[in-house]
Amino acid sequence: MKTHNFSAGPSILPQSVITNASKKVLEFDNELSILEISHRSNAFTDVMSESITLVRDILDVPSNYSIIFLQGGASLQFCMVALNLLKKNNGSAAYLNTGTWSKKAIFEAKKFGDIEIVGDSSNKNFNYIPKDFIISDTHDYFHCTSNNTIYGSQIKTFPECNIPVVCDMSSDIFSRKIDVNKFGLIYAGAQKNLGPAGATLVIVKNEILGKSERDIPSMLDYRTHIDKKSMFNTPPVFSVYVSMLNLRWLKAKGGLDYIEKNNNKKSKILYQEINRNSLFKTLINKEDQSKMNITFNLKDQNHKNLFEKICAKNKISGINGHRSVGGYRASLYNALPIESVNALVNCMVKLEKDIA
Amino acid sequence: MKTHNFSAGPSILPQSVITNASKKVLEFDNELSILEISHRSNAFTDVMSESITLVRDILDVPSNYSIIFLQGGASLQFCMVALNLLKKNNGSAAYLNTGTWSKKAIFEAKKFGDIEIVGDSSNKNFNYIPKDFIISDTHDYFHCTSNNTIYGSQIKTFPECNIPVVCDMSSDIFSRKIDVNKFGLIYAGAQKNLGPAGATLVIVKNEILGKSERDIPSMLDYRTHIDKKSMFNTPPVFSVYVSMLNLRWLKAKGGLDYIEKNNNKKSKILYQEINRNSLFKTLINKEDQSKMNITFNLKDQNHKNLFEKICAKNKISGINGHRSVGGYRASLYNALPIESVNALVNCMVKLEKDIA
Repeated sequence: MKTHNFSAGPSILPQSVITNASKKVLEFDNELSILEISHRSNAFTDVMSESITLVRDILDVPSNYSIIFLQGGASLQFCMVALNLLKKNNGSAAYLNTGTWSKKAIFEAKKFGDIEIVGDSSNKNFNYIPKDFIISDTHDYFHCTSNNTIYGSQIKTFPECNIPVVCDMSSDIFSRKIDVNKFGLIYAGAQKNLGPAGATLVIVKNEILGKSERDIPSMLDYRTHIDKKSMFNTPPVFSVYVSMLNLRWLKAKGGLDYIEKNNNKKSKILYQEINRNSLFKTLINKEDQSKMNITFNLKDQNHKNLFEKICAKNKISGINGHRSVGGYRASLYNALPIESVNALVNCMVKLEKDIA
Repeated sequence: MKTHNFSAGPSILPQSVITNASKKVLEFDNELSILEISHRSNAFTDVMSESITLVRDILDVPSNYSIIFLQGGASLQFCMVALNLLKKNNGSAAYLNTGTWSKKAIFEAKKFGDIEIVGDSSNKNFNYIPKDFIISDTHDYFHCTSNNTIYGSQIKTFPECNIPVVCDMSSDIFSRKIDVNKFGLIYAGAQKNLGPAGATLVIVKNEILGKSERDIPSMLDYRTHIDKKSMFNTPPVFSVYVSMLNLRWLKAKGGLDYIEKNNNKKSKILYQEINRNSLFKTLINKEDQSKMNITFNLKDQNHKNLFEKICAKNKISGINGHRSVGGYRASLYNALPIESVNALVNCMVKLEKDIA
């Protein structure tokens, strides 16, 4: 039995994707490795096109949106979003503060304009998603983080507003159905449900670009990468290739219809056990609990050593909570099999029996 | 016999590196793939540390320089260099224009300050490296491109000056000995002599940073990545790992002493044949000819089809010149075996015999 990989990211990928990727490192095209082919070769430009087509297909991205693969992760997007969308003169934006990554996005955006925090759950250690806040139409855009990887909360219903909604979906894109039409821009680091670290996906409504009146560095201007079909400079070839393999896997499985049901099933099993088991507690407001990153803790830290011993014996890996939160965090990304969730639940049940 | 890979980048890697990388995609640590482990795991932080130590060791980088691994390639460095080093008020820099990549670097830097072009070989389609130009001490830094991948020219002796020398070494770093002390900042996309696409190496003299007085976005500030030991955000795990394997290979081979001699030998064989063979001509001024990217052309384009047929039959891959230059370009990166150079020379000899 293989290790159960609950890592928060970079994280588990389907075994078939890993096996195929390993083969293509040895030989991909014309006897050459995927690591040593030109990014201008037909073999790779086909990979880039197929990756973009698969994203469009799986997420049902409308034709007036562009899809690009970049580098630098969500962290580089924090400043790219502001540079491309915040007007140079008197630019302002509304941000929702729901955790560490929201805070970082806000910190970077403040370098470029006025930022209004329209909702903030820092008062309760980010254990809920603020609701019923007002987003003024006067702002250039509204920014939110769909899923808070560190705290384990998730936006279930996105706020409606009349300005572009920009969303960091790094840790839950491709995990559930979304209506892309409701967003102006979506970005995501690849290293959760898309592929390995090193690639960043951006989906952007074309009409919102070109309005900031800034002289944006070429590499930070979305229009550069749209014009060059993500090939302005050498793309992260292998990361894009593995992302393509992973998107093929997702499509073959049944796309978002299938994966959302499967993710609902997996998270339900774990939350039920957290609620049932007398030794554990959840950290997050019930209606805002993430289906991707499930945070929980022991009620009594005296059971810590025994629980972690049971987990280690059963090959449960990567469930330590983020150092800023503590406790446990089980990331149930798309590729995590239901057997791994059951294995973790069995460890929790075993702890209860051993203590009794 | 495997395909002879003369690709300009991404480009050939040692077979032992490819074989090892392929295995580690299947299993790297604790039964998990290198693609699915946390970048905060000890297994990966060890990889990052070893990569940095190998760079310091192989290039003999002094202790007052920092070594960081980033993303975005040289193209992102074009604006990072300017943002970090060009003073906000009346900042200016001197740039040497020796080809496509120099031009792009200049284009981006102009968005942030006054740029003086101190030397420019565009008047002769970049077939030489300008010399005897004057670099004023009043500039914030001097920027040059050590090797022009597209045109096939290379700086053999770097100009001396009293301001920091910033150098794009994307296509010849690790190919020859350099005195790092003479540079303020060196940057290089990984995808030539370092590793696969997706990682960028920066070596910077600490004392030149922090003087621009700009409010730099965190991801674009070298100090962020120095402080966080290249782990501010998720690094391109696999690209860094393969770079480490490749640096280990280089060190085991004998480091820059060995590789410079070997590269000299390889380029000499090919230039000798270009000069000897009555059907071919070089495109570059003799003393400025690159030892990494060797550009040449047929004197008579009527022989094109036959030459390319001979090359294809002998598994010569990736020798088409860049579309802006035409002709041929053989990239003789570190991992290219001497047998591949001989194979290409044999094709040139065969063409001469077939025509005779």
